[in-house]
Amino acid sequence: MSEIAKTPEPPYYAVIFSSHRTEGDNGYGAMADRMVELAASQPGFLGMESVREDLGITVSYWESLESITNWKENAEHRDAQRLGHQKWYSSFRVRIGKVEREYGI
Amino acid sequence: MSEIAKTPEPPYYAVIFSSHRTEGDNGYGAMADRMVELAASQPGFLGMESVREDLGITVSYWESLESITNWKENAEHRDAQRLGHQKWYSSFRVRIGKVEREYGI
Repeated sequence: MSEIAKTPEPPYYAVIFSSHRTEGDNGYGAMADRMVELAASQPGFLGMESVREDLGITVSYWESLESITNWKENAEHRDAQRLGHQKWYSSFRVRIGKVEREYGI
Repeated sequence: MSEIAKTPEPPYYAVIFSSHRTEGDNGYGAMADRMVELAASQPGFLGMESVREDLGITVSYWESLESITNWKENAEHRDAQRLGHQKWYSSFRVRIGKVEREYGI
């Protein structure tokens, strides 16, 4: 995930997930890898970028709000979300937005 | 910038800047610090989150598209953008979106 996502022409949707981790792995690494794999297999998934120092930022890109809702409600992802609340994150924000413009080199 | 931004109730706007750096500093560090300071002083600025490993992701939050346009056209920022193209980034994408939902812990 160290590449810049190859997203299509806007509009599409972005989920910006900003977080601070708790101490220790506590099963996080394996679950994070699994969630990347699982997200990528979901309908409407367009790409993902993820970086962590102290703060972590993961941005996933989606075709529609419906595809984001379906991913949020995926059973295995819901288990991961619950463990995220309980064990892995001391704080996080999820922001969902509609990307209207994209440019770059 | 290792904190999660304290943004207001949506809607507001996000600029997601994803990039790969070239080798060496070449004046980047000082300019990056200056741009954070300068961005924070702009009308409509709401916050910023930034992380870099190999890939870098910086997300800045703004009140309106107009505030984003004004920041993009700021003279000192334009100089930095030009140097970014010429020297500092091997690749980048800028994505601008309207944040409609936010939640977290």
